[in-house]
Amino acid sequence: MSKPSLPQGTRDFGATVVRKRNFIFNTIRSVFELYGFQPLETPAMENMETLMGKYGEEGDKLIFKILNNGLDNQDKLEKTKAGFDKIMEGKNSTAITEKALRYDLTIPFARYVAMNHGQLTFPFKRYQVQPVWRADRPQRGRYREFYQCDADVVGSKSLINEVELTNIYSTVFSKLNIPVEIHLNNRKVLAALAEVCGGTDKLVDITIAIDKLDKIGIDKVKEELIQRGLTETQVNQIAAYLNISGSNTERLQQVNALVGNTENGRKGVEELQFIVDYIAAQPGVQPNIVLDFTLARGLNYYTGTIYEIKALNVQMGSIGGGGRYDDLTGLFGVPNLPGVGISFGVDRIYDVMEELQLFPEEVQTGTQVLFFNLGEAESKKAFELMQQLRSNGIRCELFHEQTKFDKQFKYAEKKNIPYAIILGSTELQQQTCVVRNLVSGEQTTIQQTELLQQQF
Amino acid sequence: MSKPSLPQGTRDFGATVVRKRNFIFNTIRSVFELYGFQPLETPAMENMETLMGKYGEEGDKLIFKILNNGLDNQDKLEKTKAGFDKIMEGKNSTAITEKALRYDLTIPFARYVAMNHGQLTFPFKRYQVQPVWRADRPQRGRYREFYQCDADVVGSKSLINEVELTNIYSTVFSKLNIPVEIHLNNRKVLAALAEVCGGTDKLVDITIAIDKLDKIGIDKVKEELIQRGLTETQVNQIAAYLNISGSNTERLQQVNALVGNTENGRKGVEELQFIVDYIAAQPGVQPNIVLDFTLARGLNYYTGTIYEIKALNVQMGSIGGGGRYDDLTGLFGVPNLPGVGISFGVDRIYDVMEELQLFPEEVQTGTQVLFFNLGEAESKKAFELMQQLRSNGIRCELFHEQTKFDKQFKYAEKKNIPYAIILGSTELQQQTCVVRNLVSGEQTTIQQTELLQQQF
Repeated sequence: MSKPSLPQGTRDFGATVVRKRNFIFNTIRSVFELYGFQPLETPAMENMETLMGKYGEEGDKLIFKILNNGLDNQDKLEKTKAGFDKIMEGKNSTAITEKALRYDLTIPFARYVAMNHGQLTFPFKRYQVQPVWRADRPQRGRYREFYQCDADVVGSKSLINEVELTNIYSTVFSKLNIPVEIHLNNRKVLAALAEVCGGTDKLVDITIAIDKLDKIGIDKVKEELIQRGLTETQVNQIAAYLNISGSNTERLQQVNALVGNTENGRKGVEELQFIVDYIAAQPGVQPNIVLDFTLARGLNYYTGTIYEIKALNVQMGSIGGGGRYDDLTGLFGVPNLPGVGISFGVDRIYDVMEELQLFPEEVQTGTQVLFFNLGEAESKKAFELMQQLRSNGIRCELFHEQTKFDKQFKYAEKKNIPYAIILGSTELQQQTCVVRNLVSGEQTTIQQTELLQQQF
Repeated sequence: MSKPSLPQGTRDFGATVVRKRNFIFNTIRSVFELYGFQPLETPAMENMETLMGKYGEEGDKLIFKILNNGLDNQDKLEKTKAGFDKIMEGKNSTAITEKALRYDLTIPFARYVAMNHGQLTFPFKRYQVQPVWRADRPQRGRYREFYQCDADVVGSKSLINEVELTNIYSTVFSKLNIPVEIHLNNRKVLAALAEVCGGTDKLVDITIAIDKLDKIGIDKVKEELIQRGLTETQVNQIAAYLNISGSNTERLQQVNALVGNTENGRKGVEELQFIVDYIAAQPGVQPNIVLDFTLARGLNYYTGTIYEIKALNVQMGSIGGGGRYDDLTGLFGVPNLPGVGISFGVDRIYDVMEELQLFPEEVQTGTQVLFFNLGEAESKKAFELMQQLRSNGIRCELFHEQTKFDKQFKYAEKKNIPYAIILGSTELQQQTCVVRNLVSGEQTTIQQTELLQQQF
């Protein structure tokens, strides 16, 4: 018998971690609901054809495939062998694997919308909080099973959706007490920049170089742009673009001066202006928006607004991101469904909250009261009192057997239980009990009838 | 492009269903917490050696195995081919699959306890609510992905645990408003019956026949027992056992008369007596316990108390079950950890609640208020009011674009939104808004400043 172990890159979550993670999940879920988003859950397994070819060649390799069942069925063996031979030749084959584990929440969402679009109410606002699986090489902070936490609106081009999603980010992080900057840009502005400097075919080169600004600095970015075939004039224009600074209003003016003479540039600036103005007019605490024209969000399917969230006071990559896209479900035969969505990086949010010690104390408390077990008659009375506390919603336990004080105290301590109720023969006789605060060490003797009025 | 579809036996859960399911899950979780149980989450994937051989030969076949990644890596292909050849010969091979999807929550729990027993506090009380996957042939009410919902205490022989678990069942179903009978038996009583009638080697035969009583009736059970080699005298003793009836106290007396003269019988009756007495002494509503000596719970690893839950007023198999076992982690090299656990059948509980119409109305409400969009200035004011309501916790939406009344009403209706707030040019001017109850059709015009006092 070998020692049991976990698959590489996967984790068990014990009570404390589950409670803290649920605090994050529940905060995010409740804000999604506050903004009218509805929950969706899709199965862990999808058909291979739903997933393959959607994440690029590298992505395809990282999808966990499920071996068809019944490979031990002699009838199927030969078919399966043929399928395996196809895999040997570098081709996928459904004879050996028809299903795979979900790689993200977007494709299953698109598949769901495509399958059910006749029944859905548009704009369709859904949120989804479920694990995904990727055969990435495990490393610090990267797991093979991890949760994604997405909200999307599809079937609407209205920029009010962008305003709403900005507010969702702001509300969630304010509820979690994490100070953040909400970085906004618009893909149309980047496209306009490419138009202005070097032509639209240079968009990818420009985006890749810009994306590195944080890491390598402006001089190296310039070098790279030259290497990628841009002229010095063009590089200087891009440098001016990257140099945009000041308040959001000032930034919009500067970017408008650089790219506002193109159709894309004008529209991109207009859209950002709408979002910024709409939010500035709303009551209450203002979201901390930063118009960040260096923001690119990789080379994916975004076509309008893009988002990225940076936590302040802590060294950490982005803890959220998203953007607008023109077509969610075209790949599944349902065209013309534009939308916009955001995502929360729960593992990183967890790390930020641990580092800044932001988890509230009460999240970490399971059982609130331990009743000591000091004999048969005593424990029966304790049990009776416990049932009364429970019916008032207090989380209680009775120690499972009569044993030394010491052992019962240790149990309470290890389980982080804040109160003990001690009921020995004297207390039984006098119809009292001792309530001990295990954090402060204070204790008082009260009448058993007073217990329900006690604060825990 | 083929029409997208779901893998056989899997389901998407839309908003209404997710909300109802969460109502069940949250009720169960909160009661588990009330009783001092702590959450645990384990990964979807386990190593093959953790799962294989734990569920019998049939079980092994129903485990979903995950194809190793990198089968397209030429270096690995030959190894993989060798592994596939082993599968062709009917042997499992880790060269092709090292990981598999969890088949239940008990084995991952045992694996977790075995890996971490040095750090855990015993008795260890954990609950776990996660999906499991089985390659069963899909049919009505049987899925390939479904949730299990378990609570176990390990490291304690105390029968107080049995009392607690009985109360958990009773509390959960009372909170869900499902009338149930909690059927209790004890494996030691069944063992004693076998001892008394035909010897311990007949335990399996007797159990299998008894298990069918509900379906085939007493006469057919007798026939089967004869076929299985029991004498008429023995069969008559078993028939007397199956005929036990009356109050729980009367039943205990009758069973004691039949099997109480064996060590097993005496202990089994004593244990049941303890549970029944302990519960009878507790305050509040009494759990509806039925001592059911025909209850067997298949041929699994239970050794003491066994539970099964029957919903009343509805035709449905058991909606929960569990029992005591002597050894959770022996298979993983950590012996002597006895425990007791229960499980809730969430899919069936859902069906019962649908049939008896037990889901509370409010569970089915997502967005509470829809603000109509009747123009640019109007919608900006509506947006402002909406943000105020949201900061009071009211779930709201603003319709995403200015359009006909009709369309906005239809959106509210389809999303089951109970209130609309209508703010046109008149209301904008007069600083009022119209609050319309979309269920009753009633509407009132109020000052915008009064909106926060409104009940939704």
